[in-house]
Amino acid sequence: MAGNTFGTLFRFTTWGESHGPAIGVVVDGVPPRIPLAEPDIQHWLDRRRPGQSRYTTQRREPDEVKILSGVFEGQTTGTPIQLMIENVDQRSKDYRNIADRFRPGHADYTYWKKYGIRDYRGGGRASARETASRVAAGAVARKVLGAGITIRGALVQIGPHAIDRGAWDWAAVEENPFWCPDRKMAARWADYLDQVRKAGSSAGAVIEVVASGVPAGLGEPVYDKLDGDLARAMMTINAVKGVEIGAGMAAAALTGEENPDEIRMKDGTPVFLSNNAGGILGGISTGQDLVVRFAVKPTSSIPKPLRTIDADGNEVEIETHGRHDPCVGIRAVPVGEAMMACVLADHLLRYRAIGGSV
Amino acid sequence: MAGNTFGTLFRFTTWGESHGPAIGVVVDGVPPRIPLAEPDIQHWLDRRRPGQSRYTTQRREPDEVKILSGVFEGQTTGTPIQLMIENVDQRSKDYRNIADRFRPGHADYTYWKKYGIRDYRGGGRASARETASRVAAGAVARKVLGAGITIRGALVQIGPHAIDRGAWDWAAVEENPFWCPDRKMAARWADYLDQVRKAGSSAGAVIEVVASGVPAGLGEPVYDKLDGDLARAMMTINAVKGVEIGAGMAAAALTGEENPDEIRMKDGTPVFLSNNAGGILGGISTGQDLVVRFAVKPTSSIPKPLRTIDADGNEVEIETHGRHDPCVGIRAVPVGEAMMACVLADHLLRYRAIGGSV
Amino acid sequence: MAGNTFGTLFRFTTWGESHGPAIGVVVDGVPPRIPLAEPDIQHWLDRRRPGQSRYTTQRREPDEVKILSGVFEGQTTGTPIQLMIENVDQRSKDYRNIADRFRPGHADYTYWKKYGIRDYRGGGRASARETASRVAAGAVARKVLGAGITIRGALVQIGPHAIDRGAWDWAAVEENPFWCPDRKMAARWADYLDQVRKAGSSAGAVIEVVASGVPAGLGEPVYDKLDGDLARAMMTINAVKGVEIGAGMAAAALTGEENPDEIRMKDGTPVFLSNNAGGILGGISTGQDLVVRFAVKPTSSIPKPLRTIDADGNEVEIETHGRHDPCVGIRAVPVGEAMMACVLADHLLRYRAIGGSV
Amino acid sequence: MAGNTFGTLFRFTTWGESHGPAIGVVVDGVPPRIPLAEPDIQHWLDRRRPGQSRYTTQRREPDEVKILSGVFEGQTTGTPIQLMIENVDQRSKDYRNIADRFRPGHADYTYWKKYGIRDYRGGGRASARETASRVAAGAVARKVLGAGITIRGALVQIGPHAIDRGAWDWAAVEENPFWCPDRKMAARWADYLDQVRKAGSSAGAVIEVVASGVPAGLGEPVYDKLDGDLARAMMTINAVKGVEIGAGMAAAALTGEENPDEIRMKDGTPVFLSNNAGGILGGISTGQDLVVRFAVKPTSSIPKPLRTIDADGNEVEIETHGRHDPCVGIRAVPVGEAMMACVLADHLLRYRAIGGSV
Repeated sequence: MAGNTFGTLFRFTTWGESHGPAIGVVVDGVPPRIPLAEPDIQHWLDRRRPGQSRYTTQRREPDEVKILSGVFEGQTTGTPIQLMIENVDQRSKDYRNIADRFRPGHADYTYWKKYGIRDYRGGGRASARETASRVAAGAVARKVLGAGITIRGALVQIGPHAIDRGAWDWAAVEENPFWCPDRKMAARWADYLDQVRKAGSSAGAVIEVVASGVPAGLGEPVYDKLDGDLARAMMTINAVKGVEIGAGMAAAALTGEENPDEIRMKDGTPVFLSNNAGGILGGISTGQDLVVRFAVKPTSSIPKPLRTIDADGNEVEIETHGRHDPCVGIRAVPVGEAMMACVLADHLLRYRAIGGSV
Repeated sequence: MAGNTFGTLFRFTTWGESHGPAIGVVVDGVPPRIPLAEPDIQHWLDRRRPGQSRYTTQRREPDEVKILSGVFEGQTTGTPIQLMIENVDQRSKDYRNIADRFRPGHADYTYWKKYGIRDYRGGGRASARETASRVAAGAVARKVLGAGITIRGALVQIGPHAIDRGAWDWAAVEENPFWCPDRKMAARWADYLDQVRKAGSSAGAVIEVVASGVPAGLGEPVYDKLDGDLARAMMTINAVKGVEIGAGMAAAALTGEENPDEIRMKDGTPVFLSNNAGGILGGISTGQDLVVRFAVKPTSSIPKPLRTIDADGNEVEIETHGRHDPCVGIRAVPVGEAMMACVLADHLLRYRAIGGSV
Repeated sequence: MAGNTFGTLFRFTTWGESHGPAIGVVVDGVPPRIPLAEPDIQHWLDRRRPGQSRYTTQRREPDEVKILSGVFEGQTTGTPIQLMIENVDQRSKDYRNIADRFRPGHADYTYWKKYGIRDYRGGGRASARETASRVAAGAVARKVLGAGITIRGALVQIGPHAIDRGAWDWAAVEENPFWCPDRKMAARWADYLDQVRKAGSSAGAVIEVVASGVPAGLGEPVYDKLDGDLARAMMTINAVKGVEIGAGMAAAALTGEENPDEIRMKDGTPVFLSNNAGGILGGISTGQDLVVRFAVKPTSSIPKPLRTIDADGNEVEIETHGRHDPCVGIRAVPVGEAMMACVLADHLLRYRAIGGSV
Repeated sequence: MAGNTFGTLFRFTTWGESHGPAIGVVVDGVPPRIPLAEPDIQHWLDRRRPGQSRYTTQRREPDEVKILSGVFEGQTTGTPIQLMIENVDQRSKDYRNIADRFRPGHADYTYWKKYGIRDYRGGGRASARETASRVAAGAVARKVLGAGITIRGALVQIGPHAIDRGAWDWAAVEENPFWCPDRKMAARWADYLDQVRKAGSSAGAVIEVVASGVPAGLGEPVYDKLDGDLARAMMTINAVKGVEIGAGMAAAALTGEENPDEIRMKDGTPVFLSNNAGGILGGISTGQDLVVRFAVKPTSSIPKPLRTIDADGNEVEIETHGRHDPCVGIRAVPVGEAMMACVLADHLLRYRAIGGSV
């Protein structure tokens, strides 16, 4: 329980540092006889892979996944699935000059305080590189969920620029390097991020992940509520500072009449007239779309001097000139999707255990 | 793992329905030889107790706690501590007329979908009454944390009315029925909530919980990050729809220069020049104040007609005339504090396990 | 994870000391809509209750169970079930004279070393009284398993006197105070235990628990094997020093030809020609009878002087004159049955989670 | 929780099949700043490695371990340690002819019933090859325990031939291929096993593992007792059918006077006058030697015809001519030691969490 494991029945454990020989994930609890091959996982890793546009880090990692166990003759066997990704472009020397200074906004200081040791090579375990393992686990989770459940993510805000929700088009998400559902805003973000990068700064973002086709009944009250698990799932992604379900923080300002999602019948099925609940009531899915949002802070590594201290307690300055994302939030979209998939796969199996027929 | 347990080493399990004979909590993992008596717990329960002002439900529950195990001659023994609170004012008949209709915004529909059964007596297990057990557990957690760590909560927004953070005074929190740190806003909220109640409506709220004196080093990367556990802890409180750490959702709009909390030395100790991180970097506490906020939606039970369906799929309307809080967020303050205490106690013990000397 | 919880999906947490106001258990993870009432549980508690013959302790405990939560209108609701048993016959004064001496063979010394505190009232949490909570949880587990699975226990050895397995008759088990399946041996044990008691001594025992009707497929390799969980389940019962599955320790002396249970078909169903495996291969049930045995050491509290030390490190002697079982193994039979039921219920739910249709 | 994880704080997850590309283990929860390098682990793997004498399988596996994460500049970092062992000598073709027949005494049948799929290559996940991962984890556990705790194993019985405990000499254990502490018996076992192999049969064994230097206070009552965890640990090793602590099954026949280990003082320290308890009372270590024994059944794969069925329900016979150990119990000695080390490391960390200073 040192914290590298997520999930109860669909349960994965990640390992590896950004500059070690490899990273990976053991996925346990996968039901048997599910078709699974490396391309099924590679597909999702490719979406997260860095270096695909000028808006993400230029670190070149092929992020090629290997299945080392748990699959036999093209099917899951019910035994643990080990997925390994070798690190290729490590270039640790980039980090030597900052090895004894704590980068503000990074985990350098807290790891050093907690463990009395510091893996200065790109953040070690605290690096966002770890999220590749999440995406690999998420690919397996999608297989467990099956084709009836669709999980899609989008970027809805970069810096202060939020999309026009009325212009939302899922098709647009695949057309721009930002996973932006609002075509006009995508163009604006391109300009904005070019400025940000030129200014040696960085930008935060808000990601929204939506799961459709989720049956009612997933989620375990009281402490393993579906929203509780989603909140934890998203908050543990690097740089996330806030998580919202449905109306989110704005729910505080709704009136008692506005907030409840009223229900009518349509073709013999209950339909909700709104979705302030984000598809969850009492910690259990309602059958509506699940809607989760999370905010990612701006990349903390910037090429401008910031005041900090070193391991000996000297006041120093630090500039970070490595290859970093001007907006880490962009690459967080596939990660958020993956975490949603993992949480749902876990709760699907848990629901089955008590007789739920999904 | 059906979801009624929280924590890894400091670990509690709650039980009981709003209208059963009693509710309670088993707290396991408490170190031995900690002085503990019923008044230590009662003190915190009294702060959450309903019926203390006209702004909370008029249900009269003394919420008297009994220690049934785990304490001997005034000290914890290291064995599980059972805390029981008998339900006194049950009045189930209030609920008979809504027994087969799903209250919008409530868990009625999802429990019924999941379990095929409905405890219509005030929400049963989904009732906010369960949070009394959390407060009891939190009282024990405070004892584990010791006097050096202070946990305080405040209401920072009701409906659309947010406090002036510049006017923050912790002393004010104890002087008004809203736990409001801004005296002027407290007066305004009183008027606002009177209107809301007269209008047969309800209001949401935002709660902020701050822990001071927390040592650096608490939190287990990657999936048991301190902020991940806090997010889950708060999101599982009834009616919560969003959770923020430090700058929260607003972090998305900060620039790369604004966001990182720079560090200087003061009297031989590192000091951060801001706290956008909310006291957590890489999932581990920095030693700064921990700052968590969460939004509570407006009470869903209102005396106005809402469109819904019944268990047979008929379209009906529902009005709820029971005794409900016009703003459930008020009573969520002690609950948020309790959850903060429980998360910290758990991580304190976990840190000790690997040799951390706190 | 302080150790008072057992099970993964069917999961219970016990609490309470032998001389506190009450003991009990929270059973979580029970599927909804299972009929359950207090007599369903009381039936099994009555079988374990002390004072039913002269061969068990004369402590008088009615062991009356109350359901405090999780059941509504006669059915489980899917929420945690709190079962409480009030302690009636506490007589703590019996223990005052031994309060600072460590009884050899008891947990006095280790609790004191571990916790630095000692609940001298009859062993506190280490008392076999805790097993009443296990029996209560086991009664719920039987309901989860349904009528198709039968769990029966028997005493197969007291002191050096083992039964004649050829004389095994399950009907006999209900006819004597020893749960002995061999009528002749039951008579012999009666004489033997009378002698033992007169001599101020005590006797050990071996219990065998058999589950019939268990479907193939229960058990999770590699560390949650069915036999691994059963071994832990039985070994955690007070005074147990050995656990065997099927042929048990004797398996070491079998030849490679004798040991494997060969398979034939009968009426279209696989049948095993022997059961050295005790119904488990590779940690998974085969569909044969599950057979578990465990050895219980003689009652450590005897009215004869034993050499020990006190809390100050003085060499002293101790005699225990309280009301104790001459053979604690007798009352361990219903406890072993209960633990078998709980392990099976847990694995049944776990099997369902991956699609197993049981 | 699909069963491939062991431990609470010192926690490892194994993965890999006997005939896949690799096997391995993620060890999580290791405290930081412990010196660790591959030779520290290789040392123990070499003791388990097959092909070292004519009494073990002739499969040639170098079992070379690689540390892929969690160690930086020769020290543990507090992050998960991935240990990988590539499979070299796979020769799956050996198994083709038995691919659709269930080997009696093996997990073939139960895996097929549970998962509806069968990895016929040498047992897949059910193969004893998995135990190499346990030995690797155990090597890390020994580092966590430190030099003050010694864990040694020995074979005390092969087939019907038990050692003379009076002749026990730990030095002898390293001198013969059986880890036998009784030199005379080692010679006799050599003859016996030669006969067994010539006869196309196999033999069972009993292993004893002893831990010295274990401080009093390890173990968490009630369900995470040290003996309960040890029982589970040993019972989950392939082919184990019985586990004993201290006097074990024989405790049943001891008298009430013989069984309790009396206590005296020696040089200011408590000393027990016997060790029937095997170093554990009430689930907590006493400070005496911990003594655990377990029985391993004879190798089920023998070159003689056994009656069985195939996947289509036909009655068939099967002979297994692969390279198998005539007595798998021999190689179980280092595995038993490893599991003891892992259980102790876990409880050491757990004890520290509540303030125990070990």
